[in-house]
Amino acid sequence: MTFSWSERFAERTIHMSSSAIRELLKITERPDFISFAGGLPAPEVFPVAEVAEAAGRILRERGAQALQYGATEGYRPLREWVAARMTGEGLPITTENVLITTGSQQALDLVGKILVDPGSQVLVESPTYLAALQAWNAYGAEYAQAPADGDGMRIVGLERLLRAGPRFVYCLPNFQNPGGVTLTRERRERLVALAEKHGVPVVEDDPYRELRFDGEHLPRLIQLDAARRDEAPYAGNIIYTTTFSKILSPGLRVGWVIAAREAIAKLTQAKQGTDLHTPTFNQMIAYELASTGFLERHAKIIVQAYRERRDVMLAALATEFPASVTWTHPQGGMFLWVTLPNGMDAADLLRDAIEQKVAFVPGAPFHTDGSGANTLRLNFSNASTEMISEGIQRLGVALRARLARQEEAVPA
Amino acid sequence: MTFSWSERFAERTIHMSSSAIRELLKITERPDFISFAGGLPAPEVFPVAEVAEAAGRILRERGAQALQYGATEGYRPLREWVAARMTGEGLPITTENVLITTGSQQALDLVGKILVDPGSQVLVESPTYLAALQAWNAYGAEYAQAPADGDGMRIVGLERLLRAGPRFVYCLPNFQNPGGVTLTRERRERLVALAEKHGVPVVEDDPYRELRFDGEHLPRLIQLDAARRDEAPYAGNIIYTTTFSKILSPGLRVGWVIAAREAIAKLTQAKQGTDLHTPTFNQMIAYELASTGFLERHAKIIVQAYRERRDVMLAALATEFPASVTWTHPQGGMFLWVTLPNGMDAADLLRDAIEQKVAFVPGAPFHTDGSGANTLRLNFSNASTEMISEGIQRLGVALRARLARQEEAVPA
Repeated sequence: MTFSWSERFAERTIHMSSSAIRELLKITERPDFISFAGGLPAPEVFPVAEVAEAAGRILRERGAQALQYGATEGYRPLREWVAARMTGEGLPITTENVLITTGSQQALDLVGKILVDPGSQVLVESPTYLAALQAWNAYGAEYAQAPADGDGMRIVGLERLLRAGPRFVYCLPNFQNPGGVTLTRERRERLVALAEKHGVPVVEDDPYRELRFDGEHLPRLIQLDAARRDEAPYAGNIIYTTTFSKILSPGLRVGWVIAAREAIAKLTQAKQGTDLHTPTFNQMIAYELASTGFLERHAKIIVQAYRERRDVMLAALATEFPASVTWTHPQGGMFLWVTLPNGMDAADLLRDAIEQKVAFVPGAPFHTDGSGANTLRLNFSNASTEMISEGIQRLGVALRARLARQEEAVPA
Repeated sequence: MTFSWSERFAERTIHMSSSAIRELLKITERPDFISFAGGLPAPEVFPVAEVAEAAGRILRERGAQALQYGATEGYRPLREWVAARMTGEGLPITTENVLITTGSQQALDLVGKILVDPGSQVLVESPTYLAALQAWNAYGAEYAQAPADGDGMRIVGLERLLRAGPRFVYCLPNFQNPGGVTLTRERRERLVALAEKHGVPVVEDDPYRELRFDGEHLPRLIQLDAARRDEAPYAGNIIYTTTFSKILSPGLRVGWVIAAREAIAKLTQAKQGTDLHTPTFNQMIAYELASTGFLERHAKIIVQAYRERRDVMLAALATEFPASVTWTHPQGGMFLWVTLPNGMDAADLLRDAIEQKVAFVPGAPFHTDGSGANTLRLNFSNASTEMISEGIQRLGVALRARLARQEEAVPA
């Protein structure tokens, strides 16, 4: 019998594919390219010496434990640290409300595993985080979109979408990837109230919270929900996830989920079949650096570096981009979002940009309905300020040339 | 609206639950217990000093890389090491045939993600690895069983099972968990030929291969398949997975998959949404210790320790267990399998054993059809030889007492 793998794959996997754009972006990894396409933290601010010191101490003092299998729920002292910290911030939880995950991407996968049946509807922001869609496509999710503006997910029209009975709402409230926008306090209150009213879970994805450059922290959705319910430990409908990737290291792959105990128990069962547990050694390193207060101090260094990079990018955009192009002004995080004139396709612009040796990610794949062709995402955390100025200048050249060609093409 | 998590979970998750036995076994983690229930390697043989040395060197020399995001496919030098080693053993592959996973448990999860549709049939050995069932239950798998004996999966009757059109066959050929049995060379040849004839993929799970105490290595199924096909790089229907967990450390969570490029590409897409990539630092540590030949030398120390523990357990069983009880004689690995007299329930015996402060895992959950009530699994890798002798003696006491009670209960 002739064997063909492509005839063997599960039905759901037709949604899994390497996009043409992904292939195109591979060449932008060459050293002469300036790439705003990825989502990489700045390696200059990784606390390498502190990780080395912690790793050495852990292996000297508790080496056998660090290298042994661990509980699926996670390293207990790390779960206790999360519980104590959150309880201190007004979210009353115990270790039973905490699951350690292999990065927060795994939290999204596990959410799909326990909540998505084939054909289930998931309500996402438009635009939304691409890899969340990848995670849920694998379980057969379908999508409804809640439009977002400069203040995050719009509440007008949300109740109608909730009435359609989505399995959950997915929201990235702080410095959203890809939009760079932050959900206002008022909208947070209303989202939490409406989700409770309609009995719909909310997955609150919050990887960038500690990367706030301006203004004050806003309360998490799960904190607002806990305040409405006034019960301890927390037993509501919000699943909160975050990560050590942005303030410690993405390469260690340590994140966590906070939710009602019943949801954590089911996520833990799902995680057991997925990877048994998150690497013990990595959890112990994260615990050492978090529990001593080091990470909190270190976050300030990262914030300072990224704030400067954002400012340089915003200044360069104001100088180099034509007036018909607009962009968001993020208060933190790693990304900003550009809207091109109607009718201009960011995928076409990317081809021109690659000739100028500069790259970004076109915005269409961040939408679930095929819209967003005239949008794109720029990352400002990875390149140096000099590279950012140079890269935006190159992108401006490509943009103005395409704009000129498009204007020529319009019949008089 | 009253919110209830239990009404929210996906249909598939009804198969996910913490068993009563799992809860019972929690008390056996107390220090006065002798547990043969887990599947833990011996912590005494972890190469802690060598891991510390490698970790320190990696962070000094390539710290920013170790802490940064990495490619979903895995750390390229580690993939190259796998490809070179396998090609040297007669399996012609390139890096494109290799995916690094977060332990080999993740390989099983990804296989489910790309191959299992709800209701898909998976053909497993009976008994089979419990956590593989957990992984595939999450995708809605159903099961057919191929019975195994002391020589592994039986080939008689296999063709009928293959004709029923399973999505894939799952086989653990070396020192199987839980049975402790090894598939003979002749059966390997026949399994490979039949799977090819019927166009059915085979998932070859091989975590224990390097833990061989007696005799010579047998060829992997994927090697036999490659030899039949005589094409390079390998493009056949076997998906091979193994891990560093048994010869380096399970706590680092580094394993790998070898398969046709088309299957690896799809597994990689699935992995991207699952956890983005396996921790970079951990992959670099594994590479350092594997590529220098250290792990190959270190495996000999582990083999010596586990061989002694197996021998002590076999000797104790021969002395302490009644003649009506039988067990397998594994040539390697970490487990052996005990068959009690018909009519005796291992779950009942476990309750008696726990009173004697000794524990094991009853065999029924390793079967997909509710059979195996009179079987149980014993782990011999984790406890010291003194504890093994003492533990088997305690288990013998519990066993003889239950046997005496059962004989009394039989009407004359």
